[in-house]
Amino acid sequence: MMNDLVARLTHRKKGYTLEAPFYTDKDIFDVDMEVIFGRHWLFVGVEPDVPEPGDVMVVDIGKNSIAIVRDDDGEVRAFHNVCRHRGARLVHEEKSTVGNLVCRYHSWVYDTTGQLIHAEHMGENFDKSCHGLKPVHIRSLEGLLFICLADNPPQDFDELERVMAPYLAPHNLRETKVAYQHDLIEPGNWKLTMENNRECYHCGANHPELTVPLFAYGFGFAPEELDETEREHAEQYACMLNDNHRDWEAAGLPSREVDRLDDMVTGFRTERLPLAGDGESHTIDTKRACRKLMGDLSNAKAGGLHFWTQPNSWHHFMGDHAVVFSVLPLDAERSLLRTKWLVHKDAVEGVDYDLQNLIGVWMATNQQDSDLVGYCQEGVAMEGYEPGPYSPHTEMLVEKFINWYVGRMLSHLAETRAVA
Amino acid sequence: MMNDLVARLTHRKKGYTLEAPFYTDKDIFDVDMEVIFGRHWLFVGVEPDVPEPGDVMVVDIGKNSIAIVRDDDGEVRAFHNVCRHRGARLVHEEKSTVGNLVCRYHSWVYDTTGQLIHAEHMGENFDKSCHGLKPVHIRSLEGLLFICLADNPPQDFDELERVMAPYLAPHNLRETKVAYQHDLIEPGNWKLTMENNRECYHCGANHPELTVPLFAYGFGFAPEELDETEREHAEQYACMLNDNHRDWEAAGLPSREVDRLDDMVTGFRTERLPLAGDGESHTIDTKRACRKLMGDLSNAKAGGLHFWTQPNSWHHFMGDHAVVFSVLPLDAERSLLRTKWLVHKDAVEGVDYDLQNLIGVWMATNQQDSDLVGYCQEGVAMEGYEPGPYSPHTEMLVEKFINWYVGRMLSHLAETRAVA
Amino acid sequence: MMNDLVARLTHRKKGYTLEAPFYTDKDIFDVDMEVIFGRHWLFVGVEPDVPEPGDVMVVDIGKNSIAIVRDDDGEVRAFHNVCRHRGARLVHEEKSTVGNLVCRYHSWVYDTTGQLIHAEHMGENFDKSCHGLKPVHIRSLEGLLFICLADNPPQDFDELERVMAPYLAPHNLRETKVAYQHDLIEPGNWKLTMENNRECYHCGANHPELTVPLFAYGFGFAPEELDETEREHAEQYACMLNDNHRDWEAAGLPSREVDRLDDMVTGFRTERLPLAGDGESHTIDTKRACRKLMGDLSNAKAGGLHFWTQPNSWHHFMGDHAVVFSVLPLDAERSLLRTKWLVHKDAVEGVDYDLQNLIGVWMATNQQDSDLVGYCQEGVAMEGYEPGPYSPHTEMLVEKFINWYVGRMLSHLAETRAVA
Repeated sequence: MMNDLVARLTHRKKGYTLEAPFYTDKDIFDVDMEVIFGRHWLFVGVEPDVPEPGDVMVVDIGKNSIAIVRDDDGEVRAFHNVCRHRGARLVHEEKSTVGNLVCRYHSWVYDTTGQLIHAEHMGENFDKSCHGLKPVHIRSLEGLLFICLADNPPQDFDELERVMAPYLAPHNLRETKVAYQHDLIEPGNWKLTMENNRECYHCGANHPELTVPLFAYGFGFAPEELDETEREHAEQYACMLNDNHRDWEAAGLPSREVDRLDDMVTGFRTERLPLAGDGESHTIDTKRACRKLMGDLSNAKAGGLHFWTQPNSWHHFMGDHAVVFSVLPLDAERSLLRTKWLVHKDAVEGVDYDLQNLIGVWMATNQQDSDLVGYCQEGVAMEGYEPGPYSPHTEMLVEKFINWYVGRMLSHLAETRAVA
Repeated sequence: MMNDLVARLTHRKKGYTLEAPFYTDKDIFDVDMEVIFGRHWLFVGVEPDVPEPGDVMVVDIGKNSIAIVRDDDGEVRAFHNVCRHRGARLVHEEKSTVGNLVCRYHSWVYDTTGQLIHAEHMGENFDKSCHGLKPVHIRSLEGLLFICLADNPPQDFDELERVMAPYLAPHNLRETKVAYQHDLIEPGNWKLTMENNRECYHCGANHPELTVPLFAYGFGFAPEELDETEREHAEQYACMLNDNHRDWEAAGLPSREVDRLDDMVTGFRTERLPLAGDGESHTIDTKRACRKLMGDLSNAKAGGLHFWTQPNSWHHFMGDHAVVFSVLPLDAERSLLRTKWLVHKDAVEGVDYDLQNLIGVWMATNQQDSDLVGYCQEGVAMEGYEPGPYSPHTEMLVEKFINWYVGRMLSHLAETRAVA
Repeated sequence: MMNDLVARLTHRKKGYTLEAPFYTDKDIFDVDMEVIFGRHWLFVGVEPDVPEPGDVMVVDIGKNSIAIVRDDDGEVRAFHNVCRHRGARLVHEEKSTVGNLVCRYHSWVYDTTGQLIHAEHMGENFDKSCHGLKPVHIRSLEGLLFICLADNPPQDFDELERVMAPYLAPHNLRETKVAYQHDLIEPGNWKLTMENNRECYHCGANHPELTVPLFAYGFGFAPEELDETEREHAEQYACMLNDNHRDWEAAGLPSREVDRLDDMVTGFRTERLPLAGDGESHTIDTKRACRKLMGDLSNAKAGGLHFWTQPNSWHHFMGDHAVVFSVLPLDAERSLLRTKWLVHKDAVEGVDYDLQNLIGVWMATNQQDSDLVGYCQEGVAMEGYEPGPYSPHTEMLVEKFINWYVGRMLSHLAETRAVA
């Protein structure tokens, strides 16, 4: 299987979708989980998910369940969520608050730093210090929590942080709260969910809500297909983008595009884009959804700061709220899309924001995308499927995602072979 | 696995059911789908399923989804139902009517002959003529639609057509409509569904409705088990059959048995049999269910023309209506039985026919057969199962089906090896 | 896979839980079914399940379905529940009463000794005597029914019977009836269900009902953890146990511990333990649940006779009723726990016993155990799981179960290799 996989990766036709097994095969899915989700930084949540000491959030990733705990000193830690005695799952709820972590089976007790502090009947030779919870690497990028399941995580997270912290800092995520979370099981391979996210070629025909605040020209087009009026509009958009970037940067809001999607292990991309209409937010009326702005922002017209990471997240930070998305593969043909809407921690629902207005655009958009992902999952499983061409004008970022994926897989498979 | 499979096929005990893995094993199921359903002519529907230009019917066969389209010139075509761009399933409804075939994802447009006629943003080097829908072989046998997924379909379909067209023509299927369709998921391997269809040994104990219009003696018996009265009845039946065949042939209705079940690649069998009681139809009162007769028939007493094909269909054509059945494997342990009832296209429900009366006998019979198939699927999966003997008097056609299956599998596996 | 399995078994760390694949892997589950459930004596029910000639009980064990039939001479027999003709499942209901066993498909008829006595249309060369139902080994241990699917069952069942018959005889199971049966699908590997049963370390924290009739000291403790009061209580319990054993033995009730869990092929253990409170039964008020006592017992204070067998059962016999448990694996991650409550056959519900009172303690306890088993199944499937240590004071019998399992697997895998 591995030889076959390396051959398929090596001979992948540039600019085309992957061969069917990458979207359907259980064995390749297992390699994806081992290589991509087992050795890279994964976005899993935000510090406001565990605001206080003793707060616990559980995130299940493939065969792993990870407990993210804010310890008694306020530090955020991550552990494998399994008792060291008989292997029972330790924490059952997605979110809870505890004094210590107690296993329900035989009442073994761990403190919030993961140390085993009580275990009955184990005899005089038993060493509690050897039976603490197993830690998992975790980093907070200005409040965005990334974990890595590998022993030696990619070191370029420092570079990601160096570049991105100034973009994110003005939105001050640590001082937000999760106003809403929605879990959607998309009927497709995680790569189809990611490919769907990496282009807006499909937006016009499928996303009536999302296309209200977004400018179509911001996501690429074939210049030769434009008529005269369209060409004028495209030029106007380019000028506006330029003006906006200049103004935002002057106001202390980093805005210019940085694209490291396929040349870093921890690939990412960012850019602040103007919003249409009133230009305030991803809402159906394009006005701010939350009266209280994020961080120290004094102007709601902060545009939409996009932040994409490989392999599993995207984020939109606006003046009044943020929406963060993570993709967690369930099996070769199903993926969990987890969406969280963040507002200033002091914002009050019903007073400062109306929840349905806050979440409306992306609730609709996610479901539309999920349907499209499902159509592709059905199609790529058919014998009649063969890889098709990406648009060079509107699907460049899809190609970069696939390039990154192919590169990361080959790199790790080469390592594995060198070892073996 | 392949060596093992060839050995099992080669050493299959004649006159006995297959070994358990042929009914339960996922790998053998995959070979069945590749060899039997991937390289033979499959019955999938009737021309009245797509009566007008732009009408589309989708049939899913294993990992294939096929769109059957009547093009703007009235020709029936078949395509792989998957967009050539990102691989999305193209048509979602089982039946629809379209101007062109438009993909929902990025709005690629194909005309009814499968040509790609519109695709946005693809750049100047993109050649639309290379991205049309992939065609699938399709043939209409007097209105019965057969497809073949292989590049080179079996050529003996011409012979099938030569023999069968005169039998079918008087019923004029092209001038019918689908009065009702029923999809039933049988809890068994497709071969158990076929074996169940190929004998009526089980009819007496299980089909109270079906045995009303059918003569038991038409489906075989052990002569040595008959008492004197039964022997007389059997002889009377033989005389009646002879008389009926002579009368029907004289009236232009071909009737005599043709059995090519196991000596042709496209194996088939046909015979016109008399019906019991009033002798008009497969109904609970044995009278015609539809006042308007099929084709140019002037007499409802046309008996029941049986037509069986390998691997996946059977059909009953009567004076007033026809019932056509196709078996589409879902997995090693489940099969879709699709039944369509056809009446003259001008017949009006509630005036010319009562729907419940039309479909009653076979709706009941199908469910009874499905239960029996399920009992066998449960049993053959047990360690205590071993192949059992077919009756030489009542299960000859089951044996021919299995012979055909074994022969076709061995023939294709030999080819595959010669190539490899 | 087999080499890998032998290595894992050989290098299993003594005193620790098994490596994850033993609880999760489909291939190892298949070997478990072949080796452990295919070649050992399995507890499947009681004679009162089939009290009269013609009574049939069906027990499904993995890929086997076994019909247990009391024949016309009163002997209990077991057969593979599959027709020798086309392989249909023969008996469908869990319990039924028949004159003969008749297949629904083509009406083949078998008598209660399994002989084929009628089959139509099979021709003159057909030999009915070669097509009887396939027998399965069955033994009754004082009314407890054990079957073995192997051709050559372990011979030490005789030794088990020699030791256990005197313990069981006073409760006279053949003169009981099944007052209630409950089937619970536990969400875990069968070995997790067995491990859960083999210790009471978890009882204090999880079984509020069961801990009422049971003495905690009867199931082990770490002496060094006791304070002065607890040490006194432990000593008092030891004296009481001694006194009780002396009294019971004097009254003809064998009571002393026999532990052959890991040194016999048909491993087992027994011991009669005192009950707390009024000391009569496993009820929430510790009083007898059934007014009519079992067998010839004149005193309800017969304690609780525990009887454990490898691989799949445990039993509690009290003065007034018995509870018998069997574990039947469904797949690597699910197991059926079947519980039967037995009372004297002349006891009348609502007069001699209240059903809810009779079954209350174990209905609650089984569900609690099922939840715990599920937590372990979730945990051992996680990448963060590694084998953990058993308590030397409270989990000795779990260790013996695992030792037995490892030994039996290695022994049979060695045989298989010697043959191959």
